[in-house]
Amino acid sequence: MVSAPSLVTWLTGFAPEIETGPSVFQLSAIAVLAPGATPLLVVSEDEAADAAESGCEVAAYAGFDLGPIDPVGKAKAALGGVVGASRVAIDAGSLPTALAAGLDWVDVGAELAAARAVKDPDEIERIRAAIAVCDAGQAAARTHAEPGLSELDLWALVRAAMEQAAGGRIPVLADLVSGARTRDVGGPPGARILQEGDLVLCDLVPRVAGYWGDSCSTFALGPQPTAVQEAHARARETLAEIVAAVRPAAIAGDLDARARARISFPHHSGHGIGAAWHEQPRLVPRSQTLLEPGMVVAIEPGSYDIGVRVEQVVLVTADGCETLSGHDLSL
Amino acid sequence: MVSAPSLVTWLTGFAPEIETGPSVFQLSAIAVLAPGATPLLVVSEDEAADAAESGCEVAAYAGFDLGPIDPVGKAKAALGGVVGASRVAIDAGSLPTALAAGLDWVDVGAELAAARAVKDPDEIERIRAAIAVCDAGQAAARTHAEPGLSELDLWALVRAAMEQAAGGRIPVLADLVSGARTRDVGGPPGARILQEGDLVLCDLVPRVAGYWGDSCSTFALGPQPTAVQEAHARARETLAEIVAAVRPAAIAGDLDARARARISFPHHSGHGIGAAWHEQPRLVPRSQTLLEPGMVVAIEPGSYDIGVRVEQVVLVTADGCETLSGHDLSL
Repeated sequence: MVSAPSLVTWLTGFAPEIETGPSVFQLSAIAVLAPGATPLLVVSEDEAADAAESGCEVAAYAGFDLGPIDPVGKAKAALGGVVGASRVAIDAGSLPTALAAGLDWVDVGAELAAARAVKDPDEIERIRAAIAVCDAGQAAARTHAEPGLSELDLWALVRAAMEQAAGGRIPVLADLVSGARTRDVGGPPGARILQEGDLVLCDLVPRVAGYWGDSCSTFALGPQPTAVQEAHARARETLAEIVAAVRPAAIAGDLDARARARISFPHHSGHGIGAAWHEQPRLVPRSQTLLEPGMVVAIEPGSYDIGVRVEQVVLVTADGCETLSGHDLSL
Repeated sequence: MVSAPSLVTWLTGFAPEIETGPSVFQLSAIAVLAPGATPLLVVSEDEAADAAESGCEVAAYAGFDLGPIDPVGKAKAALGGVVGASRVAIDAGSLPTALAAGLDWVDVGAELAAARAVKDPDEIERIRAAIAVCDAGQAAARTHAEPGLSELDLWALVRAAMEQAAGGRIPVLADLVSGARTRDVGGPPGARILQEGDLVLCDLVPRVAGYWGDSCSTFALGPQPTAVQEAHARARETLAEIVAAVRPAAIAGDLDARARARISFPHHSGHGIGAAWHEQPRLVPRSQTLLEPGMVVAIEPGSYDIGVRVEQVVLVTADGCETLSGHDLSL
C-alpha cells in the first residue's frame, strides 16, 4: 500500500494532481497491490474517472461536496477490509499514520525506489513526452530572452510555451536565473531585469501525465569573454563525454568521476528521472550502481565560478544510449 | 507534531514549498510544539534559512546533496529525543507513518482544523496580500480576454500578472473555463479558443507566503441575452445579501440557506480560507457554526444552468464584516 504520488504513478499509471499541495477534501491517492489481483486505487470521487483510465480497480469516496470533511475516515471506509488480514508492505516515509495504524506493516520505500530505476516502454513514452515539453520551454527561453525583460517575465513566457506544448496546466520545477545569480547553481525567477551581456541559466523540469522531463541550457545575451566561452565549451565537452560513455554495465560512480576530472561542481553529475524528478541511478562519487538498458538518466555538469550548466537526458540502450533531449545547448 | 503544510504554516509562519509535490530529498517540514518551548521546525538544510525567519528553533538535516537519500532517517535523527518521552498529539491524516512509529500518539487533526478558523492579525495581513494577488489576476483576466485567445493563453497572462504582483512564483489553484464549460462549475484552462459572446468563469486561488486568497468573477465577451444578465445579477445580489448578513454569531447554515433560497448551486455557499484554501467555517446546509470576529470567509454563489459564479472574501469584524476582495464583479 503506497500513497507517494510517484509510487502511485509508477505502479498504476494514474497521476494524482500535485500542484497545489494537499487537499482538505481528499488524501493523496492510495494504491494497493496484492499478488494476482488487479491493482486498486482508493481516490476521491473527483479523481475517479481519471483513475479508472489506468485500468485499475477504483474505490472512490466522497470528496469535494457538502458533507463533513473527513478524508481519512472516508478513505479507510473505501479501503474496507482490503488491507489488514496479513502483513502489508508500505512506503512509511509518505503513507499517512492514520492509514497504517493497527496494521502489521513493513517499510519497503527504499526497495520500491530502487525497483523503478529501469523503465517500461510505456514509461519511456511518457518521459519522451515530458522531454518534448522541456524542448519547447528551452526554445521559448532563447526566443524571448532579451535585455529589459525580467526573469519573471521570461518565466511566464517559458511556462506558457510548456503548457501549450503539454495541452494544459503542468507542474514545473525550474531554475531560471540571470547575471551573477547563475553562479548560485540555480534558483527561482525573480524581479531582476535581464541585461545586455548576461548569462541566463534555465533548468526546466516539467511533469506531464505523471512523468518528469529534465533539461538545462545556459545562454548569453550578447558576446562573452573568452573565459566564459571556455567554461561553457568545457561543460558541453564534459556532457558529451559522459553521454558517449553511457552504456549497460557502466558504473555510475565512474561516470561521475570522469565528469569531475574535467570540471568542478558541487552537485551530482546526473540522476535518473521518471515518476519522480530525481531517481536511481544517481551519478555521484563512489556509486557502484551499474547502468542497465531502460534506465533514463539526466546528465548535468556545471561550472559555477562562471555560472554555466548544460543538461541532456539519455535512455540507456542495449549497446549505448539514445539522447532524448532535443534542445539547443549553444552559448 | 505536525507535517501538513497548512498546519506547519499556521503554527510557525513557515511556508513549505508545495508546487512540485513531495521531494525525494526531504520530508515535508515537521513542526513540534511543546508547552513553554519555542516551536521547533525540522527541515532540510535547503529550507533552513527560510525556516529560521519564522523565529522558531530549526533542526536541519542534509537535503539535496551527494549523500545517500534517506530523508526519513535524517529527519528522525534531527528530531533526536525531542518527541517520544510522553504522549504526542499528531495530525495522523498527514504525518508519515515512519515518524509516528513507536510513539504513543493521539490524532488531533480535526481539533487543529477547527482551532485555526479564527485568524490572528499577522494571518489576516498575509490573507490580504494573497487577495491583492487575486485582484491583480482578476484584472488581468478582464484586460486580456478576447475572442481568438485560447483559455491556456489567457491563463498564462493571468498567472503572469499574479506572479508579478506576488514578486515571484506562487502556487495557484484555479478554474478558468469559457463557453459551455462555464456550466460545469469549473475546470482547468484548456485549448478552447474564446469566442465572441462567451462567458468566461475565472476563479483564482493563489498562495502567497503560505496563505491563500480566493476570488471568482464571470464576465462576458460581448452582449448577453436577458436570461444571462438576470442570472448574473441574481448571483451578485445573492453575494451582496450574504455579505450584508455576515456578522459575529451569524449561523453558517443560515447564511447558506439564505443563498439557496435565491439561487440553486451544487456546492457550498462559502468557506473559510487561511493556510488552507478551504477551512472552517463552512457555509453548508445545517451547519451550526457561529461566525466569530477574525474569521475570513469566501462567499461564492453560482448559477450553472447559465454558468456564472461570483465570489468575494470577507473578514468578520466586531459588528459585521469587511470585504477584502477588490476585484470587478460586473458581467
